Amino acid sequence: MRYELRFSGAGGQGLITAGIIMAKAASIYEGIQAVQSQSYGPEARGGASKSEVIISDGPIDYPKVTKCDALLAMTQEACDKYSHDLKEGGVLLTDSEFVPRTPEGNFKRVAFPIMRTAKFDVGREIVANIVALGAMVALTGKVSKENAEKAVLASVPEAFLELNKKAFSMGYEKAMEAQK
Amino acid sequence: MRYELRFSGAGGQGLITAGIIMAKAASIYEGIQAVQSQSYGPEARGGASKSEVIISDGPIDYPKVTKCDALLAMTQEACDKYSHDLKEGGVLLTDSEFVPRTPEGNFKRVAFPIMRTAKFDVGREIVANIVALGAMVALTGKVSKENAEKAVLASVPEAFLELNKKAFSMGYEKAMEAQK
Repeated sequence: MRYELRFSGAGGQGLITAGIIMAKAASIYEGIQAVQSQSYGPEARGGASKSEVIISDGPIDYPKVTKCDALLAMTQEACDKYSHDLKEGGVLLTDSEFVPRTPEGNFKRVAFPIMRTAKFDVGREIVANIVALGAMVALTGKVSKENAEKAVLASVPEAFLELNKKAFSMGYEKAMEAQK
Repeated sequence: MRYELRFSGAGGQGLITAGIIMAKAASIYEGIQAVQSQSYGPEARGGASKSEVIISDGPIDYPKVTKCDALLAMTQEACDKYSHDLKEGGVLLTDSEFVPRTPEGNFKRVAFPIMRTAKFDVGREIVANIVALGAMVALTGKVSKENAEKAVLASVPEAFLELNKKAFSMGYEKAMEAQK
């Protein structure tokens, strides 16, 4: 089993953190191996940013995404730039307000207003990355909800535990509803 | 040109952040390419943690460290675990108080009390990672002091700009002195 996830959006949206938490959830709490990475190339000057996580039940020799199993795109630019290698049948999670156009193809498509959920349902836009993480955990099913939540709580400042817990749950639930 | 750096120490010492800032300094400010990654394997359960950065003037096809050009080790466990592939002639930066034993070999060895510098000279132990980053920038010479400082300031909370600026400068200067 090798499973490749990409979290993409605008710089500053906390997608590296989301990737790191997913990798910790898989490795420290779920007991499987993980590599988390980000590449900064000439494209790093643009507005789109990505963070990748590969999880596997064996050692990970090649730590770059080769064919994406699950893509989160928080912005149109990120979706345009990073959806090219999404697998047929793969998960495509987008922010429904910021990504009006999604690529053609046979994907498991889920869209809901991620930023809006963070801002109005949770109360702080800054936790949109954790809302998105909760949704990715729900849609990919590679780590349990419990283990992912433990990784979230171990990774955020103590003053924001409740906020992040709420963000994670909201994301998880909205994605479960959206895929029904 | 391909140059491989590894930041290692104990979990929670901020070494992922140090790696991300080095990668941003190289890519966004210095205009060369960078990949930053961390692997979480069965060893992630131990106390030692590492973060790797590869910088290159061309595309980076294989984003894992193959032969380390520069190693930071903040703890003895990290030094024991992650120094095996340090190149002959490579940079070995250690915290002189926490790493009493360093590996044999022909390295450019620099040691100073990194944690102590953060705690007493800068005023907060939490910025030891930025002290170490300043020292790595000085010792490796792959990104300029100015560009690295820009990347530091763009990556830390506004309330801690001065603290981090001081930490970075202190690390840079201590490393320059130590290698004389």
